[in-house]
Amino acid sequence: MTSKTTSISAADRERLIEAAIQAKQFAYSPYSKFRVGAAFLTTTGEIVKGANIENASYGGTICAERTAIVKAVSEGIKSFVALAVVTDVKAALSPCGLCRQVIREFCSLKMPIFLAPADYFERKANAKEDGDDGVKERTLEELLPDSFGPEDLELPRS
Amino acid sequence: MTSKTTSISAADRERLIEAAIQAKQFAYSPYSKFRVGAAFLTTTGEIVKGANIENASYGGTICAERTAIVKAVSEGIKSFVALAVVTDVKAALSPCGLCRQVIREFCSLKMPIFLAPADYFERKANAKEDGDDGVKERTLEELLPDSFGPEDLELPRS
Amino acid sequence: MTSKTTSISAADRERLIEAAIQAKQFAYSPYSKFRVGAAFLTTTGEIVKGANIENASYGGTICAERTAIVKAVSEGIKSFVALAVVTDVKAALSPCGLCRQVIREFCSLKMPIFLAPADYFERKANAKEDGDDGVKERTLEELLPDSFGPEDLELPRS
Amino acid sequence: MTSKTTSISAADRERLIEAAIQAKQFAYSPYSKFRVGAAFLTTTGEIVKGANIENASYGGTICAERTAIVKAVSEGIKSFVALAVVTDVKAALSPCGLCRQVIREFCSLKMPIFLAPADYFERKANAKEDGDDGVKERTLEELLPDSFGPEDLELPRS
Ligand SMILES: [Zn+2]
Ligand SMILES: [Zn+2]
Ligand SMILES: [Zn+2]
Ligand SMILES: [Zn+2]
Repeated sequence: MTSKTTSISAADRERLIEAAIQAKQFAYSPYSKFRVGAAFLTTTGEIVKGANIENASYGGTICAERTAIVKAVSEGIKSFVALAVVTDVKAALSPCGLCRQVIREFCSLKMPIFLAPADYFERKANAKEDGDDGVKERTLEELLPDSFGPEDLELPRS
Repeated sequence: MTSKTTSISAADRERLIEAAIQAKQFAYSPYSKFRVGAAFLTTTGEIVKGANIENASYGGTICAERTAIVKAVSEGIKSFVALAVVTDVKAALSPCGLCRQVIREFCSLKMPIFLAPADYFERKANAKEDGDDGVKERTLEELLPDSFGPEDLELPRS
Repeated sequence: MTSKTTSISAADRERLIEAAIQAKQFAYSPYSKFRVGAAFLTTTGEIVKGANIENASYGGTICAERTAIVKAVSEGIKSFVALAVVTDVKAALSPCGLCRQVIREFCSLKMPIFLAPADYFERKANAKEDGDDGVKERTLEELLPDSFGPEDLELPRS
Repeated sequence: MTSKTTSISAADRERLIEAAIQAKQFAYSPYSKFRVGAAFLTTTGEIVKGANIENASYGGTICAERTAIVKAVSEGIKSFVALAVVTDVKAALSPCGLCRQVIREFCSLKMPIFLAPADYFERKANAKEDGDDGVKERTLEELLPDSFGPEDLELPRS
C-alpha cells in the first residue's frame, strides 16, 4: 500500500481494487482482446462494477468505467467517492478520454481514481517492505484538467 | 393486449413493459428533457433495466437500451429473449441506430422488441374492448435489416 | 449494372461508387484492419468522401459514412441525393446502426444507398451479360425502419 | 496577442484562430444551441476546419474537433502542428474528453491547443496595451495527462 494519504480508507481502497479485478472477468472484448474492469465506491459504501463491452462497429464500444457509472446512475446512485480501474497489462493504465468526460458529469474533480496493475495481488504480496503495490492514484481533475462540463452549457452565448 | 402471438407470454410482456416504465424514473436527461426506460428479459427470466444517461458533451450520452445491455453483459448475462422500451411521449418510439447496433451484438435477429407509449397504463385499462394497448412489436431484424455484425469482421479481405 | 431504376443516373451511380472506392485508401484502421470508404452525392452534383478513422479507445472510432457526412455538413452542405459504401470484403455490406442514425439526421428516407463489393471493378467488367455488378441498393428507410429522428424530440411529453 | 512563446508563429496562431471562428458558422447544433468551431494547422501549412454536428440521438453527436480531424485524416493528412477551438461563449473552453482522446491518436502530446473566446476579435483589438487577447494555450498533454493511447494496446497481457 502506498503511504500517500487518500480520501478513502486503506480497507476501502483494497476492496475497491479487488472489485475492479473481479469485474474484469465479464469483459466482452473479442476485438481488442483487452479486458478492463472498473469499480465505483458510492457515498453509501456500495460498490458498482463494470467491464468493457465492445461492439463490431467499434464506435459502439462502451468501456468499463462508463458501463459502471451508467449502471449506477440508472439505479438512482449519483454520488461517488472513488473509482478503481484495472486492465490486463502490468502498467497502471488510465481511463480513455470518453470515460473521463462521462465520469466528469457525476463526480467531484477531487475524486480519487486508483489505477491498478494486472498483477496487483502479486505486487501487494511483495510490497510489505517498500509499500509499493503498483497502484497509481490520480484525481479526476488531474486526468481531465480544464474540463468541459454541464455548467459550461449554461454560460451566456456571446 | 394485442392478439398477435409473440415469442414471450402475455405475463412476461406485461412485466417487461412495466419494468421499462419503472426504469425511466432514473433517467438522467437534463439536456434533452426526454426520459427513456428500457428492460431486457433474459433467458433465465430475469429483467435487467436501464435509463438514458446524458452527458454535457452530448456525444458521451448513453441511451436506456445500451445502459441496460451493458449492465447485463457486465454481470455475465448475454442471453436475452425480449426488450421493452418506453419514453415520455405517447407515440411508441423506436431505439436509435446506435442502440440497434449494440443490441445486435448480443441478441437474436428474431428477438421481439416492444415499443410502449408513455400512457401505457391508461391505454391498457381502456383496451378491454379492442385489445389495443398502444404497444408496437418489432423484431430486431425489422429494426436493423441487412445488419452489420461480428461475423462480417471475419470475412476474408478481398 | 443492375436494371433496377434508381433515383440517380447510371453515370452518377458509377462515379459515386468509384469515389467510395478511392476514399477507402485513406482509412485509418489499424485495429480492425477493415477499411471502409463512403461517398455522398450532393444535390449540386458534388461528391463528398469519407473513410473510417479508428481510435485506440475503440468507442472513439468514426466510420466512413459519418466522416463523410460531418465533413459535408461542416462545409455547409446538407442536401444529399445518394450514398455509396464499400469495404474490403466481397460481400456488399451495410452501414452500422450508428451511421444509419447520423445519416437519418440529414437525408431523406427515400435516399438510395449503394452497397458495393470490394471487387466491384472486376464484377462490373464481367457483368456485361447478366448486368450484375454486385452492388446492392437500399433506401435509408429500408435500413432504418421506424427510425427515431429530430421530430420525435419535439413531441409533447405525456 | 500573448507574449508567451509558442511553437507556431504569431501569424499562424492568428489565422488558425480566425479559421476556427469561420468554421463555427456551419455548426449544426439545434439541440444544444451551442456552436463550436475548430481548426487544425497541418505540417504543410494547410488549415482543416470543423464544426460540431449534433444528432437527435445525442450520442451520435460529433464535436468540431473530431469533425476537423476525421476530415483531415480521411484526406490523407495525419500530421498536425496546432489546434484552435472557439465556442459561442466568452470563456476560453476546452475540448471534451472524447475529442481529447481522438486528437491523441494523431497528434504529439506537445502540440499546442489554442482556446479562443467568442469575442476574440474585440479582445484582440483592445489588447494592444496588455497583450491579452483572451486566448488560453494548452498542450495536448496538459489536457489529457497519463493518456491512454495506441501503444497501450500493444503491451503484453499479464
Ligand atoms: Zn474509456
Ligand atoms: Zn439509443
Ligand atoms: Zn458506421
Ligand atoms: Zn468534443
